[in-house]
Amino acid sequence: MPQAALPGFRDFYPDKFAERAYVLSVWRDVLRRYAFVEYDGPPLEHLDLYRRKSGGELVGQLYSFTDKGGREVALRPEMTPTLARMVAAKANALRKPVRWFSIPQLFRYEKQQRGRLREHFQLNADIVGESSVAADAELIAVALDVIQTFGLTPADVVARVSDRRLLEALLLDAGVVTSAMPTIFAVIDKRGREPVAIARQKLEAAVGSASVADRVEAILDCHDVASLVKHFSGVESAAEHIERMRQYLVYVAALGFAEWVRLDLSIVRGLAYYTGIVFELLDTAGELRAICGGGRYDTLLANLGGADLPALGFGMGDVVLGDLLRSRKLIPAATATTDYWVAADDESLLVDVMMVASELRRRNRSVEYALRPQQLGRQLKAAATAGARSAVLLKSDRYMLREVTVKDLESGTEQSLLLDEFLRTLS
Amino acid sequence: MPQAALPGFRDFYPDKFAERAYVLSVWRDVLRRYAFVEYDGPPLEHLDLYRRKSGGELVGQLYSFTDKGGREVALRPEMTPTLARMVAAKANALRKPVRWFSIPQLFRYEKQQRGRLREHFQLNADIVGESSVAADAELIAVALDVIQTFGLTPADVVARVSDRRLLEALLLDAGVVTSAMPTIFAVIDKRGREPVAIARQKLEAAVGSASVADRVEAILDCHDVASLVKHFSGVESAAEHIERMRQYLVYVAALGFAEWVRLDLSIVRGLAYYTGIVFELLDTAGELRAICGGGRYDTLLANLGGADLPALGFGMGDVVLGDLLRSRKLIPAATATTDYWVAADDESLLVDVMMVASELRRRNRSVEYALRPQQLGRQLKAAATAGARSAVLLKSDRYMLREVTVKDLESGTEQSLLLDEFLRTLS
Repeated sequence: MPQAALPGFRDFYPDKFAERAYVLSVWRDVLRRYAFVEYDGPPLEHLDLYRRKSGGELVGQLYSFTDKGGREVALRPEMTPTLARMVAAKANALRKPVRWFSIPQLFRYEKQQRGRLREHFQLNADIVGESSVAADAELIAVALDVIQTFGLTPADVVARVSDRRLLEALLLDAGVVTSAMPTIFAVIDKRGREPVAIARQKLEAAVGSASVADRVEAILDCHDVASLVKHFSGVESAAEHIERMRQYLVYVAALGFAEWVRLDLSIVRGLAYYTGIVFELLDTAGELRAICGGGRYDTLLANLGGADLPALGFGMGDVVLGDLLRSRKLIPAATATTDYWVAADDESLLVDVMMVASELRRRNRSVEYALRPQQLGRQLKAAATAGARSAVLLKSDRYMLREVTVKDLESGTEQSLLLDEFLRTLS
Repeated sequence: MPQAALPGFRDFYPDKFAERAYVLSVWRDVLRRYAFVEYDGPPLEHLDLYRRKSGGELVGQLYSFTDKGGREVALRPEMTPTLARMVAAKANALRKPVRWFSIPQLFRYEKQQRGRLREHFQLNADIVGESSVAADAELIAVALDVIQTFGLTPADVVARVSDRRLLEALLLDAGVVTSAMPTIFAVIDKRGREPVAIARQKLEAAVGSASVADRVEAILDCHDVASLVKHFSGVESAAEHIERMRQYLVYVAALGFAEWVRLDLSIVRGLAYYTGIVFELLDTAGELRAICGGGRYDTLLANLGGADLPALGFGMGDVVLGDLLRSRKLIPAATATTDYWVAADDESLLVDVMMVASELRRRNRSVEYALRPQQLGRQLKAAATAGARSAVLLKSDRYMLREVTVKDLESGTEQSLLLDEFLRTLS
């Protein structure tokens, strides 16, 4: 028998499962507050669903194969194609905007490294059918409320927001030529992760002159709308994009998340994918990969062959987030869930132990007892090991009179009372 | 883009997801009451994990392939091999008995038919490290409590219990020769699904004589321990097995499930798998496949190359169970989860709508609002369509004074009060 899980796959022993369950419960709770409803699709889909014109890299990382019916299939590497397919199938019947979320387990065959496994759980939240910038604000508010609900603060996490249309308008105005854009985007994307001198050198090479590079850096140095307005209010082609960004930040503030957000036009996410405002959440310490990324992808659903509806969404995985939460000690210790351990001082009482356990369970309590005859001392030790909160003791001389002793296993205090009396206190 | 999910795979639109979430929540709640803790393993495992000596049919139904690293892998068709692997890896460190459950999605490439998809969710509950018959009783109590908690009764579901050791002892005593056992088991297994005359004919052919067939039928006609004792108390080789069955049924009664259980020695489940008491849950109407099956498999973990620990468990899938619950109207309608819809009679108030939404969400309420300017009437219509319980109306002339109107969307009653006052009632 293989001794371990496949590389990059996790076993969730109960303690690890409890951590995962905690993360998922917070995700679900926040999404409920934002009136998103949960859906799911199959973990296995037609391979064609992931064969986009632009998706070369993705297909290379797929767990794909031919099934016994000769179909080319793949384990889902992301949720959006399934979302697109499901929305397309019922596009007319669905109430708009669609506010859906899902927590799929996703699969990618990639080189293993920190924060990157071959499977992870990812919160996907999407709004479909709404082009208003208020939807963009609502979306990032969901992501930030998730982060806030975990107990993280703006000291831990920053949301960097951008809009490629705005960046492009400003770059064109600064003297960058259209044909150079893809190269510039690549340089800008890498900028924060390289020494300043090298970044500058690459930028100059890409734009062709020191003076244009200066102007590009002035754009990237704007970290609020006031700076944009101050420096670029004269750029007519950028005006509507600056105004949209201003409106967006006003809405984000109204939703309570102003202090988390920082304008950063150097964010260049998935060019083939996003069409408007984008964001990513990063740890302020800069130690981890992005915690969350998302934005508007108004043409994607149609490009995938689905419904022609504006849409926006984000994905937040459980691996990087989990690392951050653990490093901040923000995952509550799994608490024992056993309310009562029922024990007896005579093995002939096992049937009675079972009856008491049954009564307690009927009253919604979590109950365990020794499944084989044991000395009372061993039973109580087992109760303690199991982390049970209380023990219910059946002592043969007292149980004849239907009396039980309820012992608080933390404080050690105990109380003897009639079983029926005890059960009444629980109903 | 492919227009549909793969055949045999389900899309869970929000209404279907809510049904699935309901089933899973009941499963988790009952297992918690029995002090089982949840674990999970990877949905993809080494193919070798499923290559048992006896497992020919299983491998034929696997979704298996070679991954990009050259490993032979398979989507999990069942959970027990993963359980065996995980328990083996920490066998000494784990508290015994292990009381674990999991709700994996499982995959089998099989011919499609009613109640059989190519994926399903399956509750798996197992007790590892306990050979006492009390554990067998505890296990079936879990399964029956799940059924009972869904609102099903002994009029809907019956638990048929058997023990192959008992059956074998009685068959040998009745004159069946050991070499004929496998044939007999196959005949017995099919018996209930064939016309009586044909079943009898096959039985006679298998056992070789009418008189032995009579004796076999007398065995199979025993549906309680009293009958067993009456007819077979003289069979020495069966005595310990009859006694164990008696003890088991006493324990099941103590746990509160006597009226669900019926002795039925014709249950012959997975010969290569089970070693002791087995059970299956069936709809009394006989319209569906088994709802749940399980039993003791003391040698399986060791046979899989894992730890040599006695074990028992059951699996309960979501498909047959879901069919039964729907047919009995026992799945609660998905209730709208939107507590408040915030609306305004002037589009300039959108920022205020957002601030109010934010305050309500901070107080753990589920809130939605129109993401684009709309007439108040349309907003209220959208609120009704969304199934929101109440609306919070911001009317520009009153909101100047920080007054809002809270409208119950079911009764239509409304109340105007200061926003702060309203929020205080929610804290």
